[in-house]
Amino acid sequence: MGGVQSFRELCDRPKNTNVRLSLPAVCFVWQIAMIILFGIFIRYDEESDAHWIEHRKHKNISSDIENDFYFRYPSFQDVHVMIFVGFGFLMTFLKRYSFGGVGFNFLIAAFGLQWALLMQGWFHSLDYTDGKIKIGIENLINADFCVAGCLIAYGAILGKVSPVQLMVLTLFGITLFAVEEFIILNLIHARDAGGSMVIHTFGAYYGLSISAMLYRPNLDQSSALHGSVYHSDVFAMIGTLYLWMFWPSFNSAITDHGDAQHRAAINTYLALAATVLTTMAISSLFQKHGKLDMVHIQNSTLAGGVAVGTAAEFMLMPYGSLIVGFCCGIISTLGYIYLTPFMEKYLKIQDTCGIHNLHGMPGVIGGIVGAITAAAASEAVYGQEGLINTFDFVGDFKDMVPSKQGGHQAAGICVAVCFGIGGGVIVGGILRLPIWGDPADDSCFDDEPYWELPEDEESIPPIVQYNNHMRNKDEIMDSNIV
Amino acid sequence: MGGVQSFRELCDRPKNTNVRLSLPAVCFVWQIAMIILFGIFIRYDEESDAHWIEHRKHKNISSDIENDFYFRYPSFQDVHVMIFVGFGFLMTFLKRYSFGGVGFNFLIAAFGLQWALLMQGWFHSLDYTDGKIKIGIENLINADFCVAGCLIAYGAILGKVSPVQLMVLTLFGITLFAVEEFIILNLIHARDAGGSMVIHTFGAYYGLSISAMLYRPNLDQSSALHGSVYHSDVFAMIGTLYLWMFWPSFNSAITDHGDAQHRAAINTYLALAATVLTTMAISSLFQKHGKLDMVHIQNSTLAGGVAVGTAAEFMLMPYGSLIVGFCCGIISTLGYIYLTPFMEKYLKIQDTCGIHNLHGMPGVIGGIVGAITAAAASEAVYGQEGLINTFDFVGDFKDMVPSKQGGHQAAGICVAVCFGIGGGVIVGGILRLPIWGDPADDSCFDDEPYWELPEDEESIPPIVQYNNHMRNKDEIMDSNIV
Amino acid sequence: MGGVQSFRELCDRPKNTNVRLSLPAVCFVWQIAMIILFGIFIRYDEESDAHWIEHRKHKNISSDIENDFYFRYPSFQDVHVMIFVGFGFLMTFLKRYSFGGVGFNFLIAAFGLQWALLMQGWFHSLDYTDGKIKIGIENLINADFCVAGCLIAYGAILGKVSPVQLMVLTLFGITLFAVEEFIILNLIHARDAGGSMVIHTFGAYYGLSISAMLYRPNLDQSSALHGSVYHSDVFAMIGTLYLWMFWPSFNSAITDHGDAQHRAAINTYLALAATVLTTMAISSLFQKHGKLDMVHIQNSTLAGGVAVGTAAEFMLMPYGSLIVGFCCGIISTLGYIYLTPFMEKYLKIQDTCGIHNLHGMPGVIGGIVGAITAAAASEAVYGQEGLINTFDFVGDFKDMVPSKQGGHQAAGICVAVCFGIGGGVIVGGILRLPIWGDPADDSCFDDEPYWELPEDEESIPPIVQYNNHMRNKDEIMDSNIV
Repeated sequence: MGGVQSFRELCDRPKNTNVRLSLPAVCFVWQIAMIILFGIFIRYDEESDAHWIEHRKHKNISSDIENDFYFRYPSFQDVHVMIFVGFGFLMTFLKRYSFGGVGFNFLIAAFGLQWALLMQGWFHSLDYTDGKIKIGIENLINADFCVAGCLIAYGAILGKVSPVQLMVLTLFGITLFAVEEFIILNLIHARDAGGSMVIHTFGAYYGLSISAMLYRPNLDQSSALHGSVYHSDVFAMIGTLYLWMFWPSFNSAITDHGDAQHRAAINTYLALAATVLTTMAISSLFQKHGKLDMVHIQNSTLAGGVAVGTAAEFMLMPYGSLIVGFCCGIISTLGYIYLTPFMEKYLKIQDTCGIHNLHGMPGVIGGIVGAITAAAASEAVYGQEGLINTFDFVGDFKDMVPSKQGGHQAAGICVAVCFGIGGGVIVGGILRLPIWGDPADDSCFDDEPYWELPEDEESIPPIVQYNNHMRNKDEIMDSNIV
Repeated sequence: MGGVQSFRELCDRPKNTNVRLSLPAVCFVWQIAMIILFGIFIRYDEESDAHWIEHRKHKNISSDIENDFYFRYPSFQDVHVMIFVGFGFLMTFLKRYSFGGVGFNFLIAAFGLQWALLMQGWFHSLDYTDGKIKIGIENLINADFCVAGCLIAYGAILGKVSPVQLMVLTLFGITLFAVEEFIILNLIHARDAGGSMVIHTFGAYYGLSISAMLYRPNLDQSSALHGSVYHSDVFAMIGTLYLWMFWPSFNSAITDHGDAQHRAAINTYLALAATVLTTMAISSLFQKHGKLDMVHIQNSTLAGGVAVGTAAEFMLMPYGSLIVGFCCGIISTLGYIYLTPFMEKYLKIQDTCGIHNLHGMPGVIGGIVGAITAAAASEAVYGQEGLINTFDFVGDFKDMVPSKQGGHQAAGICVAVCFGIGGGVIVGGILRLPIWGDPADDSCFDDEPYWELPEDEESIPPIVQYNNHMRNKDEIMDSNIV
Repeated sequence: MGGVQSFRELCDRPKNTNVRLSLPAVCFVWQIAMIILFGIFIRYDEESDAHWIEHRKHKNISSDIENDFYFRYPSFQDVHVMIFVGFGFLMTFLKRYSFGGVGFNFLIAAFGLQWALLMQGWFHSLDYTDGKIKIGIENLINADFCVAGCLIAYGAILGKVSPVQLMVLTLFGITLFAVEEFIILNLIHARDAGGSMVIHTFGAYYGLSISAMLYRPNLDQSSALHGSVYHSDVFAMIGTLYLWMFWPSFNSAITDHGDAQHRAAINTYLALAATVLTTMAISSLFQKHGKLDMVHIQNSTLAGGVAVGTAAEFMLMPYGSLIVGFCCGIISTLGYIYLTPFMEKYLKIQDTCGIHNLHGMPGVIGGIVGAITAAAASEAVYGQEGLINTFDFVGDFKDMVPSKQGGHQAAGICVAVCFGIGGGVIVGGILRLPIWGDPADDSCFDDEPYWELPEDEESIPPIVQYNNHMRNKDEIMDSNIV
């Protein structure tokens, strides 16, 4: 009897979620590594170096306003808000995981962007004359983009992992991202300004694969903590709206100067507008009393921005953008209603935020839309120089034609999916090791294991009352005894 | 007896707020209509078209930075934030209508901006050579402006209408706006950079007239739900602050390049600062114990931005801006204290957000300030070229003089008020039809009819406790029995 | 007996927190003074004046995009968000002082920026030909900066003062700031783009000295109201994130056009990223169960931005920025854990928000980092023209050398500390006068004295229940009696 009981106690005892050694160790060691690597590799590029004033005169640049800073800084700041407030607050919707949602998002983004500057720098910004990575504003935007892939992945496992696991996820995620991005953009020569493929498709399948590897069969997703409260849903709307509003900046941040940035912003603005209407329509249509569901409004309204990511800089045409947004609002919302429960039940994939509906499917659609739009490009629509300029048909690719470019775009989708799934399976395997301090099933979706929580004011009156009550009972019992 | 009872049941039964068919139908049909109309009419303008690279060389434009995108995109994003987060969160102050406040704001803005691109495009951006509307960043800003008029109107009827009614309000509101704007700006040749007349005055009287037409005599505005809770007031401050901070971008977004944008931002910045002080002063002075009222801080602090809308691009002078802000803080706050209750009691106009105090009166004042400032303009202050440039005294209006311009500005105010009231009465009449799914009086200011609501955590502990309590009682009773 | 009792009543009676006369009086009189002084002194500068079009042709400026508005407006708006949303929401963390946190921040910033335009204008933008201050976008940014100093000081006394006291603090604070800034930047010729010295060091010691002067020996900082609730901590994260995200704009807003703005943004971005990791590490390491503390995440993550303020525009190098951020995350978090309790117990300084850890120490470190970086500058790193351009070695200072510049930077730190402490002692003495309507000890950290508070919905269910309970008890007692 005693043996059985002690065995049960062993099984039932809470997992050790104390990260007092592991989290500081990871943060310190990796941050020190970053400092060393930055010391060895990273320098300012010519537009952010103090030699700019001489360089400017030398190159006969007429004005400081030609510095890339002025072309991209406003977009950079919008992207920055999307990463930290957008993703961060979107993940505050759980009733008792708001600290973890916004706080761990903050942690992994702050680490990820440093590692991304290095990884992407080695592939794209290495100056072979001195072996240094030269960074400017465009590198910062790309680092934020790279981080977005990992934050998307975080959405699938929100509330079920420790911060140390998230750091590991980010380290590998950024590494995989940089390789995948290099293959898609440089080797395959696919265009992907807004990252439908490289960011969203990769990030979603990376996260879903990890979630599948970390499957918790006894996790009751309908548990008391796996839901929102009224005000946590309002907080999440802050995240939704900042993502929605600044998505035009996301998709146009690293496109070519001039018309490409301009056009990418317009296309994204329109696609997102259409998505809102079809999301609301489907959300209402598939509920018993026609009531809108906040989960759909918070997430599916953004699907249009994902799905025009690749084609935003192309001549997609305003009505084309609306059509893409129209379809994605429908598909994404139906995904929340039918596919997410299906995936959990039959594919054993628990997807806390529904990233498959917001990033996975729309990302793949975005890749396809990009391939079709590229294949259909013509000099009549783009102009001779415009075609070359938009698709970068120069250097090794100067003989490229739109129809072939379409094929290359399609190949890009496959690479993104493969890297996402393959990487996720491996990293998920690593994260299954019982050393990372992940929470027990009944501590999932709860800030308690990793955060000092304030005693809630709301809980004070009931407790006081309860004490009163006990006293009253005692008094009553006393009076009975007397 | 039974007959009377069933009659009573009939009367008391809730209105049918099920929008499961009507809302999706409206969203789908109208969105499809948008796609078709965009397909027929809307194309990129020369600065967002892939031909820009050729056009640039042809026109001898020295740099991509001359693309209008770089002049206006930062302001556009600020305006975009005002529309979705500013207006949206300002309307979250009600304790149980935060979802509707921010969510329906999102819906109607996303629809409205598409329809606005078409309506304003036909009037202002139609290329007669090919019958297409050519859009660029300035069109997006104008579409957001146009939507603002409808969102202002929404403020008057917040919590009392169904989303379908809001879509109808928006469809007609945008249409009326575009006509009114064309008359004021093009036919009358009034200047109105920040839209004191075309946006705020029109929007406010449009909303108030609709609210008057939808008057609910039995609605107890002091009902349990017609108020805020502590945290909903903090959410509303997010809306207030974003409107307040980005109003300089609003008033300068579509003014001329160069000094006009610069000056409009300065004037608005100053006017808003002065408004904060007088709002706080009046709010404290007119309360029994000198306590500040959040309703005033959330709304009246913004009145100065409305009231310098027209004159912001003129040489209003920094002290002139302060004077405008000073007065509007006083007038707007007094409006909340005295005028809103008066209007509800005697004019039968229920104004949920007090838009008359925030947009109506300040809008009219803004029109008047604009008329006076224009009439007082002189070459001594503006310079010869500056005067022509600021007031656009070219083409048909090259013989215009400031004093006459002042008269035209005044005429603009009248047109805005007339369109607002006239349009509002007609649209209000349409919205009275019993087919739109509006809520019963006791479901007003409640998200319950249109939103799936989370079960609130806060309600769980008391229930648990209550059960404990019942058990305790039972135990006690048992002990008594024994 | 009766005499003792009435004496006790006198002592125990609440302080008079009614600001119904004093607050409106201060707001009205000072705002009218602003209008008069603006009327006498403030005019548009040549880039915001309607004569710009003539001036542009005269000076042969090729494009409107050369107007300083386009170089600085996006940064200005980011700074503006930091002042009103960043500082404002950072101070909403107290469970019942969110209105005061965000609302009084709003009030004093709106007043302060007007007074700052005048004070800074007299020192820096006075046109001696006509005796007028000529303002443009850079003045607005500087006014926002100046306000930041006072908002930092507010953090130390949050919840313990009346709005009238805050207005007095701001009036004197802005005045002292302008003098101190003039001495540091113009007389000493120290560089301080992000204001580590002039803003953060000054503001922190100004606030701490005032707090020391207003020491409340009987204030129990561990009282029920001196803490957060779950959702107030999430609100505070809005403030944190906006400060964190836009700090690169803060430090680059008024640096030279071109590479200096570009480099300052990069350095700040990197320093802040490193700070997040070390803050999380220390927060976890020094808590019993390795749990993260929201106070640290909300505040110490920002220390890196403060500490690169001075050196951000120099060639600090990317790894240098990381090192600064690394150290400051550690120091600031340890400050919250050890120094704040120490200061309260032994130095009698009550620092509500811990500004010494977020602004004081990092500000001084920032000054030191700036001095070292300046002293180590060389033509090899900066280029000949770059060195002159970065450190402004022109005019009276054309013979300056980096090593000497380092000394001047160090002198700047001393001036900032002295002005902060000296000014704070004097202003703190003024604020001790018993005429300002400050709250009693047990009304500290409570919005109740100065704000109309909504009746909270949450409080309704317990009360109802309590009534039930009482009834139940009565029933039981009745049954006993029977």
